[in-house]
Parts: sequence; C-alpha cells; structure tokens
Amino acid sequence: MAKVGVIGAGSWGIALAKLLRTNGNEVTVWSIVEEEVAMLRREHEHIDKLPGVKLPEDVLFTTDLKEAVTGKEFLVLAVPSVFTRSTAKSMAAYVTEGQIIVCVAKGIEEDTLMTISDVVEQEIPCADVAVMCGPSHAEEVGVGLPTTVVAGAKTESTAEKIQDLFMNEVFRVYTSPDMLGMELGGSLKNVIALAAGMADGLGYGDNTKAALITRGIAEIAGLAVKMGAKVETLCGLTGIGDLIVTCESRHSRNRKAGMLIGQGYTMKQATDEVKMVVEGIYSAKAALALAKKYDVELPIIEEVNKVLFDDKPAKEGVKDLMVREKRVEHLNLKWEN
Amino acid sequence: MAKVGVIGAGSWGIALAKLLRTNGNEVTVWSIVEEEVAMLRREHEHIDKLPGVKLPEDVLFTTDLKEAVTGKEFLVLAVPSVFTRSTAKSMAAYVTEGQIIVCVAKGIEEDTLMTISDVVEQEIPCADVAVMCGPSHAEEVGVGLPTTVVAGAKTESTAEKIQDLFMNEVFRVYTSPDMLGMELGGSLKNVIALAAGMADGLGYGDNTKAALITRGIAEIAGLAVKMGAKVETLCGLTGIGDLIVTCESRHSRNRKAGMLIGQGYTMKQATDEVKMVVEGIYSAKAALALAKKYDVELPIIEEVNKVLFDDKPAKEGVKDLMVREKRVEHLNLKWEN
Repeated sequence: MAKVGVIGAGSWGIALAKLLRTNGNEVTVWSIVEEEVAMLRREHEHIDKLPGVKLPEDVLFTTDLKEAVTGKEFLVLAVPSVFTRSTAKSMAAYVTEGQIIVCVAKGIEEDTLMTISDVVEQEIPCADVAVMCGPSHAEEVGVGLPTTVVAGAKTESTAEKIQDLFMNEVFRVYTSPDMLGMELGGSLKNVIALAAGMADGLGYGDNTKAALITRGIAEIAGLAVKMGAKVETLCGLTGIGDLIVTCESRHSRNRKAGMLIGQGYTMKQATDEVKMVVEGIYSAKAALALAKKYDVELPIIEEVNKVLFDDKPAKEGVKDLMVREKRVEHLNLKWEN
Repeated sequence: MAKVGVIGAGSWGIALAKLLRTNGNEVTVWSIVEEEVAMLRREHEHIDKLPGVKLPEDVLFTTDLKEAVTGKEFLVLAVPSVFTRSTAKSMAAYVTEGQIIVCVAKGIEEDTLMTISDVVEQEIPCADVAVMCGPSHAEEVGVGLPTTVVAGAKTESTAEKIQDLFMNEVFRVYTSPDMLGMELGGSLKNVIALAAGMADGLGYGDNTKAALITRGIAEIAGLAVKMGAKVETLCGLTGIGDLIVTCESRHSRNRKAGMLIGQGYTMKQATDEVKMVVEGIYSAKAALALAKKYDVELPIIEEVNKVLFDDKPAKEGVKDLMVREKRVEHLNLKWEN
C-alpha cells in the first residue's frame, strides 16, 4: 500500500481518490479552492461534481500543495488541462527525484502544441512523468462499474507500479510505452465527438456516426503516427475506445455542442447553451495547426473547423466528406495484381 | 450504367436494389419465394422486411434465376449466409467467365469454417468474386442516410468497378484488397455484440461497453491476422466500424439476445424471445473452432461461449475478464528501457 497525493478535486480526481482508498492506499486530495476542501471534509462527497459518490472517511483533503506532494510515492495530476502548467510550476519545489506523477487530464497546450505530460516534464524535470487514460466516465468509476484504462510510462517498471496501484476487480489497467499516442488520441477525440454530434443533430443515423468514428480515428492515427506515436494505440482503449464512449454518451459536452450546431445553432449559441468549456473547439484549432506542421490531411477535422469558424452549414460539411475523391480504405495494403 | 442482378430480396438486397436503380442502373431482383416476388411487383416495396421504402417502378422482379443472372455485368449476392452454398450451386450453370459477384452477406460456414466468398468461389470457379460490407443498416440506406462501406476484391480494377457502381453522395465506397479481413470482421462481430448486450443487461455502463468493443476487435484482429488478414482492416469500417453499429443499435438481434441473457434468461429463453436467428450464437462456436485451429487466445469470445453453452452466469464472465492476469495493451510495442 502506498501514499498517494491526488492533485485536483474535479470529478475524475474524486473518483480516482475513492478507487485508490478502496485499494488500501493512504490518499490526500488537494484543491486550490478553500470552500471545496471544506465541503469535502464535511460531506465526504463532492456535491457539485460527483454527487452521490461517498468517499471513505479517512481520505484527507488539503489546500496545502506541499502537504499533498511531500512524501507521496505517487502523485495523480487531475487538474483541468488549462491549469496544468501553473499547477506543475507550483508543485516543482516539493517534488523529489524520481517521484512518479500520473497525468490523468488530456489536452494540447494551445500556443506550444505540447501534450500534458510534455508540459509537466518541462516544469518538473526531476519527476518520473506517466499518464493514465481510457474509456472512463468518472460517474461510472465512482459507482464501481467495470472499466478498463491504460497506464503509459517510459519504463515498464513504472507502468507496472501504476497498474498495481489502481487495478482491482472492477478497474482493469493495461500498460503501454506509447504515452504520445495515448495523449494525442485522448485530446483529438473531442473534435470527432463534435462531428458525431453534428450528424446526430442533422438527424442522420447509426451508419453515419459509425463512419465518422471509424474514419475519424483513422485520420487522428495518420497524424499521431507521423508525430511518432504507434498506430496500435489509436486502435486501442485510449484511441477508438475513448472515442466511442465520447461519441455515444449523452453526457459529453462536445457531442452536445455538436448536436446543437447540427440543428442550426452557431458555435457561439451552442457554447452559450452548453454553459461549460467545449474542449473540442480548442482542440479543433490545435489539430489543424499540428496537421499543417506535420503535413497531414485531416478531412473530417478540416470540415469541423469550417463549420465552427467559417459558418459553413454542417449539412454541407457532411456532403463534402461523402463526395470526396474515390479512394482505397488503407493506402498501404497491396492488391494481387 | 450497368445491368445488375440482385440475388435475394431481404432488407439489404432491397435497399441495395433501390440504391443501384437510383444510380441509373438496370436492376433485376431475384427471390426464390413466389409470393415475395408477387408482392414486390404489386407494391414496389417489401412490406415485411423494409417497410416504408418504395422502389422505383422499373426495378424488375423474378423467381427465374437464369433470367436474373444472364447478361448481367454485376451480380449482388444477398441471400442469408446459410443459403449461400445452395444458391451459388444453382447459379453456377448461368454464370459466365469473369462475371463479377459481389457478396454482401456475412458468415462462416459451420462445418467447413469457410467465408462466404470462399464458398461462392468453390461453387462458381469461373466468377470474379468480391465482397462489400461496412457499418450499414439497410433501414438507413433505404431512406438515404449517409453511409460508408468498403468494396473488397482481388484486383484493384474490380474493386473500382464496384465502387463506381454503388457510390453516390449519400453512399461512400472505399476499396480494399483484404477480403478475408473484411469477412472475418463482419462475421465475428456478432459474438462481441452478444457480450456488449450482456453488459447492458447487467446494468453496466458506457465504460464497460467501450472496453468490450475495443478489446473485442483486438482479439478478433489477433485471430484474423494469424489467418492472413491485415490488421488495418479490423481497425477500419468493416471491423471496428461495423462492430460499433452492431453494439450500439437497438435493432441488433445479437445485442438484444445478449441483453436478455445478462438479465438472467437462458440462451434458449433469449432466442425464443427474440424469435429470429441469433447469428452470434453460431459464430461463437465457429470462432472457438478457428481459435483452436490457429492457436489464438480469445478471452471475451471464450467467456461468451461459457455463458451460452455452459450456463456460466454473465456476471461471473465479466468479472473473470476484469481480473485476468495483468498485461500490456499491445504486446509488440517497445519500452525505452
């Protein structure tokens, strides 16, 4: 059993804190928000972000980052991606050589196009930075529904330590060395979820959505592989698996915003209605920037950008995807003659 | 524009006949059932199997197989998989050297473990046998919702002819040389759909289902690649794409039977309730036979077999999958050190 600091008290941080405590570890959760820590201490539950999920009474809460970091064998970094750099900067003073940091948020930093783990490594060079993701709604993990994820690290030994820490009979953890593929899949999937939402909003069926999901992961994989990721990862739990969960869920903000746009809302009207950050809108821009940098074609993501930022009707976007030049499904497969 | 014979008047044959006529081809549909042909001639609609989808008045219908086959540049073979061999045997006398037969049904022959296209080639050696599949509910294609499929053939030239024949602005056709991968994905997906249904029936969430779909395609791919198929195909429209449609659809019989079993029905009770052939039950057996022949591990499909044929409770099956020995996600990826 280990000492673990969970940095960030959103729904995912809370669900993982519960899981880690259930597995017998000593868990301290940090939040920058005093009222949030007070509420968690009082209620043993995050009333707003993960209602109905009670935490064991001996999970500790603090606003003191030094306390949350010091002496912990594992740090789980669960702050939203936009706060990653600032939080890592503050943590750096307390992190010791080789301390394992498991990044569980996803995103690409807008101006640098860096992944979360890249940002953390840059800010805390002495840490052993790893990632964990997969198809895992916090709401379902919080109530113990069977879930699978992947722990990615540079060394097999670190990945296996994370696997041992989290795994139990309702939470299965695989390991992988391809952190880059995991992070790109997790970040770019939200753009495809917007497209899937648009198709739903237009009244299209299961055929259209399955096509968007499948061709969507194919184009994300094309980009990711050019950046150095492995195609297997994009075809795995953190790629297609996470994309399926996001595109099928009624809870996904990205899908919901896409649906509204499919029904005729502008991007502004749709985000006003959803009332939360629609990450796919930022990722759509980042994806285009990466496509340009690495010289890769992203037909679905390009159409999503046109719909979002150039007022192209979503229906026109889908039509233009359907009538693109005829092609083979996989360029590298060989014909008999 | 071409002359096309559609052999089989089920929902998929009818939807494709409409599509082909809309694309300007001369279309003759064959059925062995006299009353079905009479009804189609009278109503220009298949009242039972694809209600609400009107066919153009100049689509021809016949019970005469010679008439349906002779002089046609393309034959679309759309009979249920169990009737493939007998129908191909009857067609053989009329098929001429190099005539293109597009197989659009899926399945593995139980006693020979052959794919549909293998069976047709064996019965009609002079034909140019091809396949077409992908995430494509007939009900949605019938009403013109955007759909993508793949045409597989031995030569690029035949695949492109099929692509040209079917493609239009709501029906996008890719090409592929990997017929084997397409057919294995399409046949074995029904076993995973049973497992996904069981998870739904047990009240599990999106996380569990996404895991079953993703790990399910990984194990199908493991088998298919050992048989000579390409991994890309299993990650494409005819693999994961078709699997997504089957596992998410409320109309899938396989998923429905799985749901009932998850709720506590026996296999017999579940199939009685669904009242139609549950193909996944036969494919589950075929998959195990193939796994044995090719020495491949299929953990999900093995558990499905135990639940179907050995009365193992579905909940135990899911639990045993979650607590299997810890492993890496993709065996072939390398660690830094």
